[in-house]
Amino acid sequence: MELTFFNGKFIPKDEVKISPDDRGFLFADGIYEVVRWYEGIFFDMNSHILRLKRSLGELRINWTGVDDFQSIAMELLKLNNLNNQPAMIYLQVTRGAARRSHYFPSPEVTPTVYSYAWGFQPDTESKKTGIKVMLKEDIRWSRCDIKSVALLANTMSYQEACQNGLKECIFIRNGLITEGSHSNIFFVIDGTLYTHPENNHILSGVTRKNVLRIAHEAGIKVREEAVPENRIRFIREAFITNTSSEVTPVTDLGGNSLNDDMPGPVTMRIREKFDAEIRAMQGL
Amino acid sequence: MELTFFNGKFIPKDEVKISPDDRGFLFADGIYEVVRWYEGIFFDMNSHILRLKRSLGELRINWTGVDDFQSIAMELLKLNNLNNQPAMIYLQVTRGAARRSHYFPSPEVTPTVYSYAWGFQPDTESKKTGIKVMLKEDIRWSRCDIKSVALLANTMSYQEACQNGLKECIFIRNGLITEGSHSNIFFVIDGTLYTHPENNHILSGVTRKNVLRIAHEAGIKVREEAVPENRIRFIREAFITNTSSEVTPVTDLGGNSLNDDMPGPVTMRIREKFDAEIRAMQGL
Repeated sequence: MELTFFNGKFIPKDEVKISPDDRGFLFADGIYEVVRWYEGIFFDMNSHILRLKRSLGELRINWTGVDDFQSIAMELLKLNNLNNQPAMIYLQVTRGAARRSHYFPSPEVTPTVYSYAWGFQPDTESKKTGIKVMLKEDIRWSRCDIKSVALLANTMSYQEACQNGLKECIFIRNGLITEGSHSNIFFVIDGTLYTHPENNHILSGVTRKNVLRIAHEAGIKVREEAVPENRIRFIREAFITNTSSEVTPVTDLGGNSLNDDMPGPVTMRIREKFDAEIRAMQGL
Repeated sequence: MELTFFNGKFIPKDEVKISPDDRGFLFADGIYEVVRWYEGIFFDMNSHILRLKRSLGELRINWTGVDDFQSIAMELLKLNNLNNQPAMIYLQVTRGAARRSHYFPSPEVTPTVYSYAWGFQPDTESKKTGIKVMLKEDIRWSRCDIKSVALLANTMSYQEACQNGLKECIFIRNGLITEGSHSNIFFVIDGTLYTHPENNHILSGVTRKNVLRIAHEAGIKVREEAVPENRIRFIREAFITNTSSEVTPVTDLGGNSLNDDMPGPVTMRIREKFDAEIRAMQGL
């Protein structure tokens, strides 16, 4: 039986009852996080908690239990016997349930907090051989920096990619490549690593941040600078990053083959260093 | 006890249980409608149903019961003793509950359908004296033509207006005035009525459509053409439209007083014709 966390209690998933008045359901008025468990450690939990606090702050949702997230996650792993396997923990916090109105409830209501964990099978094949991705105009809002559950644009875009047999949809806004529907993207041009800078058009990924650090430490030249669509022909390598894909090579970008459809050398080097760090943190 | 419609049954609201796997809750992957009941008639139910079908079609949500909406709404009014008062009916349809993944569930799952009705007190004061509204950069996505529940940008913007003591937030995109957070907006310039044309930057309002027809029939010159922000000084009158506000004058647009803070003559004329039509439809 799957046990989940719901408003302070660990209960079977079947017993979780989201109110139809929940502003998460009515208005997408909530945020989320997804954290990865590598048998023994959470991946950069501190960064996830910092981002969680930032998202809550931007929406002015006051969840007083935010610092309990790590212990909630640990308890979910234990209760569901997931400690000894790769797992993921999802957390969603909405503004809570209140009579439907566009304005925030006043006085404030208690936020809805829902979390669950699941055993996770990494896509090792994609990590090894790389993926083909779609390029598409970014239809999302202009506060992509908030990790909100208003993900309809992301799901519609990703679905379009899937239906074309592609593994991610990469967005272009005002002629610049921003990020994917649920990943960040990096490029290698002339030996330099590029990725879109942190601003309101991308979500600041925890894996992205760590990859930037790893690249710096490895002496790779890094520029947090958007790559314009019209410079695609100069891109030699690309890879996406996120909590589940870690560092996954991109071998085809919107029909443009990269590095003869093979993961590139800079990508491989970063991926290896990323994997080595995880193993070291696990004490392996 | 409030009775609602949930997945085929009329049940007390307390018994409605949205699954935490519902894609409406997780991804804002759903659409909605709000219809007004004027003691005896629904306001332009046909247009609401047409728009509902369009929204479902754009998201490829297959709700086979879509043509039952009017009878569901009637039943909700009856069960809650709302027939003889002004009321509203809310309907939300999401893609349904499925294991969380950005792509659409395959095979399809049964959509979640939730509807409820409530007695409604029209804001007659605002309709009479007009409202002051905020002007703000449009932070929404670029598929505003879909009446989706991905409303976080709308609620954040409206909340900002409320906190400034204003009654609506009107958006500007690329220098053009588009619409409000939950209303359309009309302007009178040189005796001509302007409103943003139907495209992906506005939601095509049912009241908007009827107001355009009424204006045409009244011989008022109408242009479905966006008004640029830099032409605000030429605006003589403005009003917003939606299902609850009907035709509500705007007397101050982002700090620009209109018609000496009074509802303008063209606005009043349209409002009176609108009200007269409702009374005629009710047989009053």
